[in-house]
Amino acid sequence: MSEGEQVTPRSEDYAAWYNDVVQKAELAEHSPVRGCMVIRPYGYALWENVQRSLDRRFRETGHSNAYFPLFIPESFIAKEAEHVEGFSPQLAVVTHGGGKRLEEPLIVRPTSETIINASYAKWVRSYRDLPILINQWSNVVRWELRTRPFLRTLEFLWQEGHTAHATREEAEEEARRMLGIYREFYEDQAAIPVIIGTKTESERFAGADVTYTVEAMMGDGRALQGSTSHHLGQNFAKAFGIRYLDRNNELQNVWQTSWGLSTRSVGAIIMVHGDDQGLILPPRLAPIQMVVVPIWSAPEEEAAVRAAAEEALRSMHGLRAHLDDREEQTPGWKFHHWEQKGVPLRIEVGPRDVERSQMVLARRDTRDREAVPTKGVARRAGELLDEIQSSLFERALAFMEAHTHIADDFDAFQEILEGEGGFIWAHWCGRASCEAKIKARTKATIRAIPFPDTTGMPSGAMDGPGTCVRCGRPSTERVVFAKAY
Amino acid sequence: MSEGEQVTPRSEDYAAWYNDVVQKAELAEHSPVRGCMVIRPYGYALWENVQRSLDRRFRETGHSNAYFPLFIPESFIAKEAEHVEGFSPQLAVVTHGGGKRLEEPLIVRPTSETIINASYAKWVRSYRDLPILINQWSNVVRWELRTRPFLRTLEFLWQEGHTAHATREEAEEEARRMLGIYREFYEDQAAIPVIIGTKTESERFAGADVTYTVEAMMGDGRALQGSTSHHLGQNFAKAFGIRYLDRNNELQNVWQTSWGLSTRSVGAIIMVHGDDQGLILPPRLAPIQMVVVPIWSAPEEEAAVRAAAEEALRSMHGLRAHLDDREEQTPGWKFHHWEQKGVPLRIEVGPRDVERSQMVLARRDTRDREAVPTKGVARRAGELLDEIQSSLFERALAFMEAHTHIADDFDAFQEILEGEGGFIWAHWCGRASCEAKIKARTKATIRAIPFPDTTGMPSGAMDGPGTCVRCGRPSTERVVFAKAY
Repeated sequence: MSEGEQVTPRSEDYAAWYNDVVQKAELAEHSPVRGCMVIRPYGYALWENVQRSLDRRFRETGHSNAYFPLFIPESFIAKEAEHVEGFSPQLAVVTHGGGKRLEEPLIVRPTSETIINASYAKWVRSYRDLPILINQWSNVVRWELRTRPFLRTLEFLWQEGHTAHATREEAEEEARRMLGIYREFYEDQAAIPVIIGTKTESERFAGADVTYTVEAMMGDGRALQGSTSHHLGQNFAKAFGIRYLDRNNELQNVWQTSWGLSTRSVGAIIMVHGDDQGLILPPRLAPIQMVVVPIWSAPEEEAAVRAAAEEALRSMHGLRAHLDDREEQTPGWKFHHWEQKGVPLRIEVGPRDVERSQMVLARRDTRDREAVPTKGVARRAGELLDEIQSSLFERALAFMEAHTHIADDFDAFQEILEGEGGFIWAHWCGRASCEAKIKARTKATIRAIPFPDTTGMPSGAMDGPGTCVRCGRPSTERVVFAKAY
Repeated sequence: MSEGEQVTPRSEDYAAWYNDVVQKAELAEHSPVRGCMVIRPYGYALWENVQRSLDRRFRETGHSNAYFPLFIPESFIAKEAEHVEGFSPQLAVVTHGGGKRLEEPLIVRPTSETIINASYAKWVRSYRDLPILINQWSNVVRWELRTRPFLRTLEFLWQEGHTAHATREEAEEEARRMLGIYREFYEDQAAIPVIIGTKTESERFAGADVTYTVEAMMGDGRALQGSTSHHLGQNFAKAFGIRYLDRNNELQNVWQTSWGLSTRSVGAIIMVHGDDQGLILPPRLAPIQMVVVPIWSAPEEEAAVRAAAEEALRSMHGLRAHLDDREEQTPGWKFHHWEQKGVPLRIEVGPRDVERSQMVLARRDTRDREAVPTKGVARRAGELLDEIQSSLFERALAFMEAHTHIADDFDAFQEILEGEGGFIWAHWCGRASCEAKIKARTKATIRAIPFPDTTGMPSGAMDGPGTCVRCGRPSTERVVFAKAY
């Protein structure tokens, strides 16, 4: 695909469309290292906005950032039995350093529970040292066979929170609090409605007692796990000896959580909002919220048009505005370029607009255009950004609702998956064997045992007990099935 | 060393003092992975302030952030002959991934010239694509044998800028601009005076044409290289084929720079400003600029004292203030605690202060205390922070000047190094052999061929040509020697 070309239509080939959008929007590209991507400046600026948005929420809830080593001694990973079993097939191993073979190989962190808990074991002595509320922004490596930019890469960027508490209740509250922050991030910032709920045992994080999850529906009806928050119970505390003296001077294991959100979230933003013209970014996270394009043909028009465009730019206090006054590109090229990059709002200024003391505002999402008196442009631009933000959410929610079904027998269940797909709310007996058989037959997995207050629950989905969609055994509630990324 | 104890006096054992400060200020600690440290929340908050300060300057000078892979194929490192020679002994090598032996080993990046330039070779086609001005915040790994927290660790955090330009002049201007930004960071933000200048060939970055450096004097008179900025010439452009069509449609190699500043800068801040009580942080980078300590003994005093302390905290708009109202610790313990952590200013409020509508402000650097009317506290605190910032710089500059000497013969040169040490400005013939012999004999290296406008030049140091301090051959100017970290 060369400069100026369109992206593959979404409806024609969703995977090709995704790759085209990533490339044309200059978000990322493949690197010479298999499975690793280069995050280009525009993609990284989007990730920085994700970071800023989350980091502020983490601080407001009492967390501090810190940094732990990239390398983990092999023996550490092995300390928690389920953890090592879950991660072993995915590890990258450093065997040589400084020209010599290492006595003990080092694992490039796939996640940092083990190395961080080795420190916590030293830091925690008394109940006064609790809670420990720490977050880390870092890169992690998981050896994946099939990779796609943002969605699944060998190395990815993320944040991982790791906390230690005196009681089970506090850890539970923390795990749910962070799930709430992820939900707030997705819904209020990324304009993506999400199912919130609990993972089944087979989908749980290796080493956790409970995994809570945030699941979003992509534009092709498949689910994407947006982030997870784990109640680790005392599993790592026991493995690493993280104990404290309580108020009665008795030695107790701490209770822990961990929670993470990665560059995968960028993939979700692309797949939920993008259209046949390319990327569409939610205003709150967009690196550039609006682009100002001055338009002139005769040289004598330039000065007035340019002055008006510059004035418009200056008036956008607190908004992320960019002036594209390059002379080597035509206005048409620029419109196309910034549409592909998903900039939410475009401001056009031509000689006739200057004459009439107006500018034209064009929305990226609806492609609606409106003329606005120059002195009202900044206010109207702010309003439109708010409208675009909520309209993107509403659109995504309507899509999710339209692609969410209740299935009460297995024929209907299969029919939906073979047809348009989407989320299926169905009764399940709670047995891993049934879950595995459904997956083998349909490729659909249980994305979440939903919370009662989740977004996206179809009416009638929580109407009491029923029978498992596969085996007919009793079930207390419906869970959410989908094919997933 | 247990809670409440003092740090080892600086004059008694500088290395022990350093380690004590790092530990008592809760900046970092050793990790179970040899040579890697854990950066604790307080140390990481300091690094985040370093990042914020630099990142703003990088953006103001037109740079964008991006992210390139952690892993570099072994063959890439080998492409630039000097580069591979310089870094080979320091590499960490991933040989296994996903349970299998890799066909080509992957190097954990020691620096990213090679992997980044592989991308630039794809991005650059025409003069219109230039300049490329990109920075990356990342972790890098260099296999070191002797490590110390912040100063030298196997893994460290840094930023690395990588740029590509159409002409030698533009690249030269960029390399010097970034050196200027590092100088500004050290002098204006970290309150550390620095020598700026050029590295000799033997101290140059592996693969650069010219390396510019920022050198600071630590509290023991030894030098620390604070950051470097390299003019890479066309070395990587030729190795990676980064060529562009110029305005005359002729194919040209690009000219490049790279420049970096790492968590080592935190080590410099500790070593330049700290004293026998512990850390002293420059206000502009301090995570906590002032701590408010309410003091009461009788329970009936608590309400009024606490209210006054909270009011003081609220009045500190735009300043990073922290209220330490823990009940389980005494005021004396708190004074000691926050002094060890280097908080620049302490505000004490007791019952008598409340009565008199005043508070006591205590400076960390001079340990001076003054009573200030309550309504003037915020303003006075702001003034004092400014005073502390400049006073720390002046103190460090005076120290550097007092430990800087001119030596015109080798006896004098050796005598200084065997005595109090410090920086020695001496003539040098320009031959690597003389430089190597001086190093072998005295352990002193040439830190910089100084710029005429450098800070810290002793009077008379640039009085024209002379003769090499070791061999007596002619020399055009004096260079700066020192033992270094």
